[in-house]
Amino acid sequence: RYFHFCKLPGRVLGIRLLRFTLVVIIVLLLVAGALTALLPSVKDDKMPNWRRETKPQGQSAPVSFTLIMQTYNRTDLLLKLLNHYQAIPHLHKVIVVWNNIGEKIPEEMWNSLGPHPVPVVFKVQTVNRMRNRLQNFPELETKAVLMMDDDTLVSAHDLAFAFSVWQQFPDHIVGFVPRKHISTPSGVYSYGSFELQSPGFGNGDQYSMVLIGAAFFHSGYLEEFRRQPEAVYALIDETQNCDDIAMNFLVARHTGKPSGVFVKPVDIRNLEKDTNSGYSGMWHRAEHLLQRSYCVNKLVNIYDGMPLKYSNIMISQFGFPNYANHKTKM
Amino acid sequence: RYFHFCKLPGRVLGIRLLRFTLVVIIVLLLVAGALTALLPSVKDDKMPNWRRETKPQGQSAPVSFTLIMQTYNRTDLLLKLLNHYQAIPHLHKVIVVWNNIGEKIPEEMWNSLGPHPVPVVFKVQTVNRMRNRLQNFPELETKAVLMMDDDTLVSAHDLAFAFSVWQQFPDHIVGFVPRKHISTPSGVYSYGSFELQSPGFGNGDQYSMVLIGAAFFHSGYLEEFRRQPEAVYALIDETQNCDDIAMNFLVARHTGKPSGVFVKPVDIRNLEKDTNSGYSGMWHRAEHLLQRSYCVNKLVNIYDGMPLKYSNIMISQFGFPNYANHKTKM
Repeated sequence: RYFHFCKLPGRVLGIRLLRFTLVVIIVLLLVAGALTALLPSVKDDKMPNWRRETKPQGQSAPVSFTLIMQTYNRTDLLLKLLNHYQAIPHLHKVIVVWNNIGEKIPEEMWNSLGPHPVPVVFKVQTVNRMRNRLQNFPELETKAVLMMDDDTLVSAHDLAFAFSVWQQFPDHIVGFVPRKHISTPSGVYSYGSFELQSPGFGNGDQYSMVLIGAAFFHSGYLEEFRRQPEAVYALIDETQNCDDIAMNFLVARHTGKPSGVFVKPVDIRNLEKDTNSGYSGMWHRAEHLLQRSYCVNKLVNIYDGMPLKYSNIMISQFGFPNYANHKTKM
Repeated sequence: RYFHFCKLPGRVLGIRLLRFTLVVIIVLLLVAGALTALLPSVKDDKMPNWRRETKPQGQSAPVSFTLIMQTYNRTDLLLKLLNHYQAIPHLHKVIVVWNNIGEKIPEEMWNSLGPHPVPVVFKVQTVNRMRNRLQNFPELETKAVLMMDDDTLVSAHDLAFAFSVWQQFPDHIVGFVPRKHISTPSGVYSYGSFELQSPGFGNGDQYSMVLIGAAFFHSGYLEEFRRQPEAVYALIDETQNCDDIAMNFLVARHTGKPSGVFVKPVDIRNLEKDTNSGYSGMWHRAEHLLQRSYCVNKLVNIYDGMPLKYSNIMISQFGFPNYANHKTKM
């Protein structure tokens, strides 16, 4: 009996020790589980890799895109273009950004001429701003956006091909109009097209931007555009220009790669001259190009660095329009 | 005292239960730990994603490639081509696969005409086999391989550009000669170039192979080629043909994507007519193309499926040779 009593304290300690160990282990497991649940969301910063999300081949729903077209003072061109773009393959919806402040949208006329292949939404704006088109519209349901200027017509063939290319490069701006910046010994940047000197990496030329006025890009970039420094919005509003340069900066910063992929268009047309409005577009302003060089330098200042990268990749469609366009005489 | 005795069984059970629970928890932790350690190696099958390995920009050593050129009965062309290829930018080494069985390699003459820009290694073969060039040579130190036929000259500009493209598509065969297969209602496949009907996905043509006789690809594919079914080697040996079709099957199976990326060459030349040997290359044999269709069907049989996928991406160099070659009249 004394023997048992002597062991009692041992067994009591034993139980307490065991219970304590058990509690410690359970607490550790809970902490580990909590950490595991937290880790992915810390890693996945606000800049997801959209390549994983976009898998075009053989997924449940066919991939489609939303056309966003901003319009100002060229309703005749808009309607002409809507008749063309409403019939592009894989188009989900059209969002018209109506910068004609105070003017009625042509919704009645549009409806009276229905039915239409896809829904068209007119977004009435309160202020005539260039960056109105860069809103994350609630009507936007697709991952892909096609942004077009309201004076540009690109053939269905070009769009279908460029859309297939975008699906292979979903985190790039895939479009038809390449531009570049160059650095000068003074450290000041200049903006232009091929007539500017090449950046000097060897043979041929390079581009560092693809303009969004005729391009596909991921809708996530519209969300990201909302999170830029105020100074960027101020710059775009001040110049009524450069929203596309700002978007290229944003994409380059996001990917660490060249922002755009240039697809050489077969049939792209500028319909400016066809308008009855007499309005011929912002790029005819005398200061337009100087403004864009100014914007490049301001953005470098705002972002404290030059994120744009060069590319010399030019993509064309194999065997189209000439079925032997890839043939080389050896 | 009886009170204590009555509680003893409870405390004993308590201890046993606690100890049992503790042991179970520890065992579960060990099993979980073991599973975690095992999982990654099960996922990483023998086909690593080489995209992660190849990061050309800003890494420690500049990226370079190894030229592998197989030669048979055209030593005059070989030497002419060696003078050209030895000076290509980013070339690390040349491996000449010497299929002239029993004939002395021109090493003495080569050395007497030194120094040379890069090392050239002559690999003497014991049997004249088409697939000799697909060995994983110990002298091969680079991740990139440039494979050239011994009668093909591609300009340095084209090679420098295609090499830069390969670095952006390291798991593809990036080259200058596209080919396709088509299916027929009977289920039998046929092999050809653009003169064959298009696979019918819309406008334009498609290619499903890029020939390795003028292309860059990852050296890891040579290692993978060693691990193919015997029937593949037998097929290549039987036809002395189709090693390139087999490589395209291999790459397509590895990536699940189109095997090749076609870069349109500006200056590619076939030097067959320039040889004094009178030997004009395997592709002149009457049965050459029929053999290749035969190979496509045999390989589908061996691999129990058709892994080749179509692409219509054609890549050219922006602003080269014509600095405005991307300009479109709008």
